[in-house]
Amino acid sequence: MGKHTAFFHNRPTIAATYSVAGKKEGDGPIGKVFDYVFEDEYFGEKTFEKAECKMLSTAINGGISSCGCGKSDIDAIVSGDLLNQIVSASFAARDYNIPYIGIYNACSTMSEGLAIAAALTDGGYMSRVAVATSSHFSTAERQYRYPLELGSVRPPQSQWTVTGAGCAIVSAGGKGPAITAATFGKVVDYGITDANNMGAAMAPAAMDTLITHFRETGRTPSYYDLIVTGDLGAFGSRVLKHITGENGYDISFNHVDCGEIIYNIDEDEYQGGSGAGCSAIVFNSYIYRKLKDREINRVLFLATGALLSTITTQQGESIPCISHAVAVENEAL
Amino acid sequence: MGKHTAFFHNRPTIAATYSVAGKKEGDGPIGKVFDYVFEDEYFGEKTFEKAECKMLSTAINGGISSCGCGKSDIDAIVSGDLLNQIVSASFAARDYNIPYIGIYNACSTMSEGLAIAAALTDGGYMSRVAVATSSHFSTAERQYRYPLELGSVRPPQSQWTVTGAGCAIVSAGGKGPAITAATFGKVVDYGITDANNMGAAMAPAAMDTLITHFRETGRTPSYYDLIVTGDLGAFGSRVLKHITGENGYDISFNHVDCGEIIYNIDEDEYQGGSGAGCSAIVFNSYIYRKLKDREINRVLFLATGALLSTITTQQGESIPCISHAVAVENEAL
Repeated sequence: MGKHTAFFHNRPTIAATYSVAGKKEGDGPIGKVFDYVFEDEYFGEKTFEKAECKMLSTAINGGISSCGCGKSDIDAIVSGDLLNQIVSASFAARDYNIPYIGIYNACSTMSEGLAIAAALTDGGYMSRVAVATSSHFSTAERQYRYPLELGSVRPPQSQWTVTGAGCAIVSAGGKGPAITAATFGKVVDYGITDANNMGAAMAPAAMDTLITHFRETGRTPSYYDLIVTGDLGAFGSRVLKHITGENGYDISFNHVDCGEIIYNIDEDEYQGGSGAGCSAIVFNSYIYRKLKDREINRVLFLATGALLSTITTQQGESIPCISHAVAVENEAL
Repeated sequence: MGKHTAFFHNRPTIAATYSVAGKKEGDGPIGKVFDYVFEDEYFGEKTFEKAECKMLSTAINGGISSCGCGKSDIDAIVSGDLLNQIVSASFAARDYNIPYIGIYNACSTMSEGLAIAAALTDGGYMSRVAVATSSHFSTAERQYRYPLELGSVRPPQSQWTVTGAGCAIVSAGGKGPAITAATFGKVVDYGITDANNMGAAMAPAAMDTLITHFRETGRTPSYYDLIVTGDLGAFGSRVLKHITGENGYDISFNHVDCGEIIYNIDEDEYQGGSGAGCSAIVFNSYIYRKLKDREINRVLFLATGALLSTITTQQGESIPCISHAVAVENEAL
């Protein structure tokens, strides 16, 4: 069996982060930690798609500024989003005189990008890489499900796509929390076909990567202060704890899911937040700050993605899922 | 300005390749070099999308076999395609117990993937990485343009989406042509809005990456035996030669475009082939064999991509383009 975990020995650091969130997310329980909250869901643009693109640019610009460097100091933008042909990322990248590496693993894109950026900087190929991803409730809803105007009733196991964009600047050397390892996930498909029940579909993928990570690193759950998944939601998070526990790894004491903490759970959101922007804004604000402030020192971050499209659903396919894990750690004092 | 070129000093090699092509491609001028040609455009599946997915699996399996190794020797599959949410790649990856890194830069995905795989292997993070991409005339046509049944007339500047999938196995060390450098492209947009005129839209992106490559490596066009672009087509290739020449780099003597050589140009194909599968099958058969046989020893391969979607076209956006370059070289005897 090939090895799934890459170790980064030169401490590629997350030098800075930035998060851009919509009003609903800004009103949520961790809303105060987002760097920028906008009120109008069009973000001053004519279409939701252009709004999403602007969110992503705003996050990238914010990351670069927070890093104390300029655009010319960034060697690449590693970015992707949920729209067909990842157009938010591609159109955002158009405004920079910086190489663009487009990636897509659905809502696992943030941790996928961090892993790629860690390899590019740790290996000495680049000095600083901006990793960014986004989602927008209104672009995702009309692409994946139904026109908003239809007013479809949402089933209780559904989640709410987060409007937000997050960016991390990964730097060769320097100070700050470092990406010390990445476990790349494989595709896991348990045959679930309900596109409204993503949390349950994605939990086995998160478990697979988690257990692979523990086996290949020799670590146990207690090595980490927090094990953070992307957007399993409340139900999916319970599923993950349960099935991981059954396999001998108890994560019930230190597991948190970004989708579960982003909203005050009420009728609309049901199981919590989802979308590539969900883990992107929570990791690049709430989690990153806790690391910077040394409230926590070791985090395993696993964004989780469902790799379906409307056409695969129409053709009766089940939902393949994936999760990539990155270990982010402070240096011992 | 950041550096756009990464140098790989540990000679990550392309240990093996495999190409799967449709009947039309098999009947073309270089049809005999493809490893596998299938007659039925459904490839024995019920839908064109499932056929594309099977093409990709066939290419990955072929690459692994040609390499003389097993699936368990592959540390990651780096793959993407043109379908929404790159579902061909994701669903193909489902059949392997191997980490999956989804990427998307439209028809520039093959060289993007080779560059990422080179970094992952050269840096010591992985031993062997399968890089694969595909396109299928019938899936692309109905997603990007019109239903096939409509029988729309194609304008003379249009190209024909290649049905094909290619795979390269990039290996840490070993024998064979090595990826010695990669120049990552930035997004270039000259304001072209005609989705039937991709060659002209993409040529400036190829030029930008080419010139950046020459400047950052100190090389001139004559360093290479061949400078291979992806799918500019006949007109786009002429545009590239012209504008690159105007900037002081004459590539007229050693430039070839995969899209230009894949078909016997007649009425249907107009400017030649396009699609992520175009450069994937030409590079992973015709070009790779010439390298292996030492007919040529230094190749610069620039797959070229147009980063549009139907929604950006509908919203009146122009076409952002990109091209990533990889230098593939034999060791001196």
